[in-house]
Amino acid sequence: MKAVPELAFGELTDVIGFLMEIDKLKGVQRRTKVLGTQRQENTAEHSWHFAVAAMALAPYAGDDVDINRVIRMALVHDIVEIDAGDVLVYDLAGRHAVHALEEAAAERLFGLLPEPQRRQFHQLWREYEAAETADARFALLLDRLMPMLMNLHNFGQSWVENGIRLEQVLARNAFIGEVYPDLWEHLQGHLYQARENGWLK
Amino acid sequence: MKAVPELAFGELTDVIGFLMEIDKLKGVQRRTKVLGTQRQENTAEHSWHFAVAAMALAPYAGDDVDINRVIRMALVHDIVEIDAGDVLVYDLAGRHAVHALEEAAAERLFGLLPEPQRRQFHQLWREYEAAETADARFALLLDRLMPMLMNLHNFGQSWVENGIRLEQVLARNAFIGEVYPDLWEHLQGHLYQARENGWLK
Repeated sequence: MKAVPELAFGELTDVIGFLMEIDKLKGVQRRTKVLGTQRQENTAEHSWHFAVAAMALAPYAGDDVDINRVIRMALVHDIVEIDAGDVLVYDLAGRHAVHALEEAAAERLFGLLPEPQRRQFHQLWREYEAAETADARFALLLDRLMPMLMNLHNFGQSWVENGIRLEQVLARNAFIGEVYPDLWEHLQGHLYQARENGWLK
Repeated sequence: MKAVPELAFGELTDVIGFLMEIDKLKGVQRRTKVLGTQRQENTAEHSWHFAVAAMALAPYAGDDVDINRVIRMALVHDIVEIDAGDVLVYDLAGRHAVHALEEAAAERLFGLLPEPQRRQFHQLWREYEAAETADARFALLLDRLMPMLMNLHNFGQSWVENGIRLEQVLARNAFIGEVYPDLWEHLQGHLYQARENGWLK
């Protein structure tokens, strides 16, 4: 992909080049549609929604979670999709295949930034991907939660369109029960109801 | 505007109702178009772009600026547009008229949240609007910077379409020279060039 032409901004030239390049995230489409519309949401607006969810759910995150870091993960977690595209969370083979592409995308895109920003963005993305720290696990919970909530408020739209089964949703998201058992309890109830409604197979 | 139907999530019910309601920000259109496309950006994706700009420009913000607060301002600063709409920054009469609408929008939308989140979101928005603290002034700089940068990288798209004059851009954004003189110096050079190119009157 061709980068947009660069304008001189002194010490800010590289940062501004990066900011113009990542405008492309607004053109990466996800499966989820904006509520009450026929328009697929893009990854930039999803990242905003996820980051606001981190702010709004901060009081329930637990003392070991630094919400400012979770917000930053939300903002950068999908920038690699500019080169690698969005892969449905239930497409396990696709997600495996895209991993090398995402690594290369991270090198190229975060590599547009000067230090120390390059290292900071790259490390946040790696930490999110590894899903091992408390911050990354809470971030992953929110990233998974948002499309589930949107489906539950939108007649199961992307589940129906992609033929998703209840068992897939339960298996892929069971870790939520470890991070926030009460939320998972409620979610499970709504997911079983979604199958009753015919929104999940 | 009708709120989306609410699902029970225990202590999270109100927060999740808020998160589903603010999905509507993805449908608020701005004048600026996504680079290289004919699609107007919406306020949700703009808010993401602004928040990432805060992260990427953090090293140049000065010691009196708390970037985590600037990021949070970016995420919430335009949520009121769900009820009040987007008004062009150069439409001073329109901006004045919309002020009462925005106050009511903040009451309604942030009022969907439980305490202490309601107060936190509302205060961040008020602080951003007042543009008096170092954090809010840096946030305002970024909010103004992003569409200028996009115009400079997109043949002056929204300036041309709205008949904007160079003098308007210089007058409305001169405060950037107080916050970050070196950036303003570079911007001014590009803005004068934009008029040479016919992108500004």
